[in-house]
Amino acid sequence: MNLILLSGGSGKRLWPISNDARSKQFLKLLNNETNLESMVQRVWRQLKEAGLQSSTVIATSKAQVEILKSQLGSTVPLIIEPERRDTFPAVALAASYMYSKKNLSLDTVIAVLPVDPYVNIDFFNRIQELENTLIKSHADLALVGVKPTYASEKYGYIVTKNKSSNDYLEVSRFKEKPSEYEAATLISQNAYWNCGVFAFKLKYIVSILEARNMPVQYDELLKNYNDLEKISFDYAVVEKAEKITMLPYNGEWKDLGTWNTLTDEMEAMVSGKGIISEDSVNTHIINELDIPIAVLGIKNAVVAASYDGILVTDKIESPNIKKLMKDFEQRPMYEERHWGWYKILDYTKYPGQKEVLTKRIGIKAGSNLSYQKHFARTEIWTITNGYGELAIDDQIKNIKAGDVITIPIGTKHGIKALQDLEIIEVQYGNQLIDEDILRLNTDWDEVKALCKVNYK
Amino acid sequence: MNLILLSGGSGKRLWPISNDARSKQFLKLLNNETNLESMVQRVWRQLKEAGLQSSTVIATSKAQVEILKSQLGSTVPLIIEPERRDTFPAVALAASYMYSKKNLSLDTVIAVLPVDPYVNIDFFNRIQELENTLIKSHADLALVGVKPTYASEKYGYIVTKNKSSNDYLEVSRFKEKPSEYEAATLISQNAYWNCGVFAFKLKYIVSILEARNMPVQYDELLKNYNDLEKISFDYAVVEKAEKITMLPYNGEWKDLGTWNTLTDEMEAMVSGKGIISEDSVNTHIINELDIPIAVLGIKNAVVAASYDGILVTDKIESPNIKKLMKDFEQRPMYEERHWGWYKILDYTKYPGQKEVLTKRIGIKAGSNLSYQKHFARTEIWTITNGYGELAIDDQIKNIKAGDVITIPIGTKHGIKALQDLEIIEVQYGNQLIDEDILRLNTDWDEVKALCKVNYK
Repeated sequence: MNLILLSGGSGKRLWPISNDARSKQFLKLLNNETNLESMVQRVWRQLKEAGLQSSTVIATSKAQVEILKSQLGSTVPLIIEPERRDTFPAVALAASYMYSKKNLSLDTVIAVLPVDPYVNIDFFNRIQELENTLIKSHADLALVGVKPTYASEKYGYIVTKNKSSNDYLEVSRFKEKPSEYEAATLISQNAYWNCGVFAFKLKYIVSILEARNMPVQYDELLKNYNDLEKISFDYAVVEKAEKITMLPYNGEWKDLGTWNTLTDEMEAMVSGKGIISEDSVNTHIINELDIPIAVLGIKNAVVAASYDGILVTDKIESPNIKKLMKDFEQRPMYEERHWGWYKILDYTKYPGQKEVLTKRIGIKAGSNLSYQKHFARTEIWTITNGYGELAIDDQIKNIKAGDVITIPIGTKHGIKALQDLEIIEVQYGNQLIDEDILRLNTDWDEVKALCKVNYK
Repeated sequence: MNLILLSGGSGKRLWPISNDARSKQFLKLLNNETNLESMVQRVWRQLKEAGLQSSTVIATSKAQVEILKSQLGSTVPLIIEPERRDTFPAVALAASYMYSKKNLSLDTVIAVLPVDPYVNIDFFNRIQELENTLIKSHADLALVGVKPTYASEKYGYIVTKNKSSNDYLEVSRFKEKPSEYEAATLISQNAYWNCGVFAFKLKYIVSILEARNMPVQYDELLKNYNDLEKISFDYAVVEKAEKITMLPYNGEWKDLGTWNTLTDEMEAMVSGKGIISEDSVNTHIINELDIPIAVLGIKNAVVAASYDGILVTDKIESPNIKKLMKDFEQRPMYEERHWGWYKILDYTKYPGQKEVLTKRIGIKAGSNLSYQKHFARTEIWTITNGYGELAIDDQIKNIKAGDVITIPIGTKHGIKALQDLEIIEVQYGNQLIDEDILRLNTDWDEVKALCKVNYK
């Protein structure tokens, strides 16, 4: 069996800790013995423990490539959507990769799973049994259904037909987010929670692509990706399947998608700098800022702070954060990249004058920023820790903590950390946008060779 | 009549907006027609409107000199305690100034008032009547008593003798913070709130100084200030007075010393960047940060954020913030100075390596930083707005936005803003402390003359 791990989501429901560059699955808030790990790190580790990691690819979007490499290692196998076009195109792209690039047989069973279930290893063992279920039941799709523990209004339900002699059940219909009363009725009729895990044979998805006149070759599908219809896997595949079976799972499963469910799994009441009065019962602080948070007399709440903003929410109300913030657009103030990270310390626009952006930048030993130039800004770098090599104006120089480098508009520059390097960068210019960058070369050996030639 | 305005307090009860350098009276949160003003700005304006400002001096400590000049103007008359030694030494120092420096007659009536009552102009008119009250009643002290509006447990009470034919009453005793029941009983017995306003003749306080073997000459008292006994005005004077009269005041008077009372006087629910859900009834946001605050489903609370920290408190519980933060020490992250302001953007200490402090600094047009040098740090200045003059290494240079100046350890430097000037400063060194500064000269004309001579 092969797996596709779907890493999606823009993550407004866990604002301000999650943002467009760092969805909820990347937050390092979960306890794993001595250290903290993110949801995606937990699932990736569990896939390895279940012996499934080597047959898994991660389907994701361009925006998440940097952070996935940062958290799972630079060799993690990624299928990268050029842009977000809903779940069916994402699954189709990964399936076409398995078909035309990995050359898997059309009879190969593929399981798709979301990146954010909070489960133990039994869940992954159960997923492996989907392969047999699919083959034995001759179904188009085989799903995992989670035995409900209460009449939740938040989940989708899988309604099954009467019990069979097999360990799987036949699916009769689906019901999304019922009322509590409906949910209780469904559960009494042997319904299960839909946890978003489903399996199919490669030939089934290939036949759907063909029927929809879509390319089945990965390269071609990728090329035409931005023209594909935005359509969900549920709508394009699940609703049209003739026979669907479901494998029940009777273990712990949680969706940590909102602050109330996520904080349930956090051992400490305070993450980061914070102090909570004794009468502030069941209140959590999640603080990524350097300044402290004090909470006094506030019960059943979450206070979450990052460089993007500060949220103070009642736990029960916390799923509504997405609605409150819907018109709220903001550039992320902290980002992880494959070469390191940066945080924005200050941004000021002087009316009728220049813009100034001050950043603290960390570059991991061995990593480098590409050789690049800007057309509308000067950059002033103060090296504050570590040492490395600077490429500037086609020359290579050794730099170390304490050095100050002024990079005028149009000047070619790049930097490589030989030891973990930190920089305070002041950008100064007419229009400070991420797009004002011309990347000349990202390979440091080539940059050095180039500088040597030009410098002669 | 002459007045002493007492500006004291370290302000933990309004943390994190107030700090040691910015007590509650300096917070610009009160509405004055089109702009916001601080408590001290409001009282200073009201003193002017009542015709009392020109006969008022402000008794304060060294720590508040910069911000008082910034908020009230550089010519504001200040009597500066070398260090905090409670209210009796503070009043005595100001009185000795009036006696030996302003040469006021010993029969001059002096009124002392705190800087933080929230009142209208009638209150100040009533204060002026203390002069007549003191003279007519032949009392040692004359106080203003505020007619209570409810049985508060937070205030001190002035208990008076039976009604007289005068508009003033004779004081029989004081009662600090009674229980609600006691307070109600006191009010039924014609007790008043003690608002901290009292008047005396200059000769009365001079005689007490003499009786305590303290100097009556300002210069001498100032010189010996740090050896004076720490004793409150209440204990040293009020409790020992033979006859005290009280002038009732039957108008609005509020103590805005805690978040619940202060927010009552704020018209807007949100000050700074913030968004509050509709169900968050009676919740205020006070946000001095550049990042937004979102509040969801939290009632009767205050969320206050500054570069010092973030407070989330129930309004009723808010007076307890002082207790919660009692062991909490922190350097202020934002400070106003007479020449402008600065905020700390980032502080990092690299283990076994250097410390780095990044600041954004604003210097007001016409102001300058002293000509100075440091012994343990390099500074890198990027001028981000405005223009001015730089004195460095005994040379004068014109500088403007976009310039970068590196100031190595031991290098003399100073800067004057000819137009409002902003700088991103990166400090880099072994030990970044405020004390690492040798001020060579604060007078810019002298600095320029010196540079001219040395540069020849």
